[in-house]
Amino acid sequence: MSDETAIRDLITRWVDAVTNCDLDGVVADHDPGIVMFDVPPPENGVRGIDAYRNSWPPFFEFIRSGAEFELLELDVAAGTDVAFAYALLRCGTPEETAADPDRRLRLTIGLRNRGGRWYVTHEHHSFCHR
Amino acid sequence: MSDETAIRDLITRWVDAVTNCDLDGVVADHDPGIVMFDVPPPENGVRGIDAYRNSWPPFFEFIRSGAEFELLELDVAAGTDVAFAYALLRCGTPEETAADPDRRLRLTIGLRNRGGRWYVTHEHHSFCHR
Repeated sequence: MSDETAIRDLITRWVDAVTNCDLDGVVADHDPGIVMFDVPPPENGVRGIDAYRNSWPPFFEFIRSGAEFELLELDVAAGTDVAFAYALLRCGTPEETAADPDRRLRLTIGLRNRGGRWYVTHEHHSFCHR
Repeated sequence: MSDETAIRDLITRWVDAVTNCDLDGVVADHDPGIVMFDVPPPENGVRGIDAYRNSWPPFFEFIRSGAEFELLELDVAAGTDVAFAYALLRCGTPEETAADPDRRLRLTIGLRNRGGRWYVTHEHHSFCHR
C-alpha cells in the first residue's frame, strides 16, 4: 500500500469515527504532541492528546443532534517521512445545510511517519469568515 | 543549511514581504497549483498562483492602514521531500490588538521539495470562532 493510500485510509477512518462518535477511533492515529487549531477557542490551539481527546465530546453532541460530517474532497501530499493533506467537508445540521448548501469546513492535517506508521501531529479546522 | 532552517527562512521572508506589501516577494516561493484556505471566502479555497496573487492587494490595504502581521510562534516539520509548518501570528490594527490582545491568526503551510528547493503548495489561514 502506498503512503498516499495509507494516509487516505487513515483520514477516511477518522471521519467515520467522528460520524460514529467513536472517541477511541478518533484518537487512534494521533501523536501525543498533537496541536489542533480548532473552530472554537483556545486561540493558541488544543495541545496534547489529552486536550485533543477532551475536545471531541461536545462535537459528538452536535453529531447526535443530526449534524453531518461528510468528506467531499481530499488532497494528500505524501513524502517519505512527513505528509500533509487538505480537505473540504460538509459539516452542519440538515437545516443549516439547506439554508447554506455551499458552506464548507476546511481541514488541513499534518502527519509524520515513525517506524512505518503514520501519526497525525497537527490539525487545522476552520470556516471562512463572511 | 538544514531543510528546517530553509523553511523557517522561507516563511520569515514571506511574513516580511506581507508586512512590506511586496507582492513579488509574497509569491516568490509558491507553487503554480497553490491552494489557500483564506480567512474570507471563497469556501472552496483560492486556487492557483494567479488567484493567490490577486488575493493579496486587499490585505495590503489593511496593512497600509496600520495593521500588524507579526509571527509569534512557528513549528516546522521538515521531511526529505514534503514538509508542513504551523504558526500563530498577531494580525490586526493597534486598536484591534489593544481591545483583544490574545486574538491570534492561525496559519498552516504545506510545502514540497523539487530539485532541492522548497515550494509552498498549500496555506490555511483562520481565526477561531467565539
